[in-house]
Amino acid sequence: VITSWVDVPDGSDFPLENLPLGVFEPAETPPGSQGRVGVAIGEQILDLAAVEAAGLLDLGAHQAVGPDAPPVFDRPGLEAVFALGRPGWLALRARLTELLAEDTPERGQLRPLLAAQKTVRMRLPFAVQDYANFYSSEQHARNLGRILRPGTEPLLPNWKRLPVGYHGRSGSVVVSGTPVVRPAGLVRRPGADAPTFEPCLQLDVELEVGTVVGRGWSPGVGPLPADQIDEHVFGFVLLNDWSARDLQAFEYQPLGPFLAKSLATTISPWVVMLEALRPFLVAGPVQDPVPHRPLRVPEPRNLDVQLELALNGTTASRTSFAAMYWSWGQQLVHYTSSGGCRPGDLLGSGTVSGDQPVSYGSLIELTDRGRSPLTLSDGSQRAFLEDGDAVTITGWAGGDQRPRVGFGDCSGTIHPSPEV
Amino acid sequence: VITSWVDVPDGSDFPLENLPLGVFEPAETPPGSQGRVGVAIGEQILDLAAVEAAGLLDLGAHQAVGPDAPPVFDRPGLEAVFALGRPGWLALRARLTELLAEDTPERGQLRPLLAAQKTVRMRLPFAVQDYANFYSSEQHARNLGRILRPGTEPLLPNWKRLPVGYHGRSGSVVVSGTPVVRPAGLVRRPGADAPTFEPCLQLDVELEVGTVVGRGWSPGVGPLPADQIDEHVFGFVLLNDWSARDLQAFEYQPLGPFLAKSLATTISPWVVMLEALRPFLVAGPVQDPVPHRPLRVPEPRNLDVQLELALNGTTASRTSFAAMYWSWGQQLVHYTSSGGCRPGDLLGSGTVSGDQPVSYGSLIELTDRGRSPLTLSDGSQRAFLEDGDAVTITGWAGGDQRPRVGFGDCSGTIHPSPEV
Repeated sequence: VITSWVDVPDGSDFPLENLPLGVFEPAETPPGSQGRVGVAIGEQILDLAAVEAAGLLDLGAHQAVGPDAPPVFDRPGLEAVFALGRPGWLALRARLTELLAEDTPERGQLRPLLAAQKTVRMRLPFAVQDYANFYSSEQHARNLGRILRPGTEPLLPNWKRLPVGYHGRSGSVVVSGTPVVRPAGLVRRPGADAPTFEPCLQLDVELEVGTVVGRGWSPGVGPLPADQIDEHVFGFVLLNDWSARDLQAFEYQPLGPFLAKSLATTISPWVVMLEALRPFLVAGPVQDPVPHRPLRVPEPRNLDVQLELALNGTTASRTSFAAMYWSWGQQLVHYTSSGGCRPGDLLGSGTVSGDQPVSYGSLIELTDRGRSPLTLSDGSQRAFLEDGDAVTITGWAGGDQRPRVGFGDCSGTIHPSPEV
Repeated sequence: VITSWVDVPDGSDFPLENLPLGVFEPAETPPGSQGRVGVAIGEQILDLAAVEAAGLLDLGAHQAVGPDAPPVFDRPGLEAVFALGRPGWLALRARLTELLAEDTPERGQLRPLLAAQKTVRMRLPFAVQDYANFYSSEQHARNLGRILRPGTEPLLPNWKRLPVGYHGRSGSVVVSGTPVVRPAGLVRRPGADAPTFEPCLQLDVELEVGTVVGRGWSPGVGPLPADQIDEHVFGFVLLNDWSARDLQAFEYQPLGPFLAKSLATTISPWVVMLEALRPFLVAGPVQDPVPHRPLRVPEPRNLDVQLELALNGTTASRTSFAAMYWSWGQQLVHYTSSGGCRPGDLLGSGTVSGDQPVSYGSLIELTDRGRSPLTLSDGSQRAFLEDGDAVTITGWAGGDQRPRVGFGDCSGTIHPSPEV
């Protein structure tokens, strides 16, 4: 194990093996200042715009160089990093490992370019182009089918044939810590003749992982081949697909969820690169029937990432990303098969639910649509979210014999619905 | 009637009363050059970047001025025009009317800044942020309900309560003239046990009008008030929501259409400003039940725009945008009620179908899902689109006693599916 000259406390999400990227504003700048790219190490963030300006981040052939070259890291988003392509991503990772390793000669130059993470303001790490969301946990799909369409087969005929998904609103994607306002919308209350426009009473979470597309694929040429997936995936974020279940129930037929999902979609500020998670690739569930040819992605195709959902500090769910029926790679192949993809596209995995009730990734499943409320550590009960509730998703791989590769927090607090 | 010093042939979509904006590359520049904003007049386009550089487009308080001010028109998109806000849009329209009117003193300076429209390359007029699509023609919803869910009530319980819609893929939006490649996807053919991955056999059009959002509305503050709609709508485009019906039939439950709609979405290169269409506001259909309060938009709320769909030169549909049950303004209010909106959002109206078979806006309706094929002027028949087919949507208001305010063509030609 290589160690860093930066202190990495036990249990940190950010040892030298992780090196996730994010966009931040330094503490001494006014809010809304130009953000720049940084990398997390222990409890610190290294300002890569400053490292670049110091001439220590030359990536050679993967980057335009010279005094007139546009900066890659002195930007408020990861777009220029995406544009390096996978060889550049690997070169960047290798160079950051050199710079942060114990024996680096540049540590004196670099130390002043560190800041404590708790002092900086994290921003959305990239401008989300298209945002799609899937429905790829079999347990989640079965739970929702049972709750929403009782008495019928919970999995519809397409479910095991393709990764069912829909497009969401990219403008809804916000960085961890952004307040989440309870929406109002049309709902039909039990016993009511007609729907009424009022604040959502069934505000829910969906515990997900998002795939960040780093390289585009042209529309009109068919699906991305399975052996090229790694060239197009920059990394992953944690994702909370906030959902207004009562709005959703009224609006979603026949064209799917719309305003029930557009209130907010929170992601972690840190994008963990695929390369950092490569040691944690594992086999997914057996797929029966065998998927059609473009979706036959060789094993291992799933990521062994542990996920937790906390509500006001009480752990409400513990689950694993490893059990997803459709993998993130299969989702990307499916997504590209009509319309291609662009750098900055974000693909939500769908709610990650395991096969035990404690591993369900949404309140509607955890509480059986409110019939069995959760009891929090302060003794209060929750069917769905109340104003003031704070939700935090965490996720990590390793941490056992292997270095822990984590995402930091993906959090949001519920604010009341505005008067309308 | 004021006339222009630029020749405007009879029947032109672009008299002085229209002044739609678009983004173009001059003929003498290589493809992919920096586009700039232009305005259509007759068969010409006036290069607004050049007019701005000549100092003839000072919009006063609505625009930063001075040698260091960033250009508004020398850009490959309308984003800086959107940022002027409605007072700026009105000032721009007034100034363009001055510059192009018969008696303008600057005509000698301006004449060299004109180019024939047929010589330039039109580009996508703005970077689409989020793209949503509605389902707001009652006749279309009834036709689709009858075809897709025979034997049941064609309108679902939510249909008359809110404008049903879904999010589409903003990356699918392309400018008129872009080839449309037939997608392949999972379909279940009649009599087949299992779905197969193969080229779409039911490629269809949807004749629509798109609303272009010019000013954002914050999420979390409730819906945009009805009396502020005009401040947020920059204008309109024609829109063809290409649809793969066989893919859609297999994929769309329970989360709505996804890849069936992401192959391409063609829009007209010209954005007609709301102000140019204001004389054509008309009352919409009576809404029963009365919508909930945020959706009560005062009359007149619909636009009297005539629409035509041509397939290989044969007129296949003639319909009117005036008959939409839910108006573009109601769609925007609904859209903003959860998640706000951003400049550059594009809201498709949904297929515009009238109450006569000749006024249906899609082939699935015009041919009763292929059972009654159309006969084209060359004698050939069409149930759905074949490779090589050319589809053109046109649309205009006025043209009777009043000046014609049109959109130009919204066209695409079908290319074969790639081998997969």
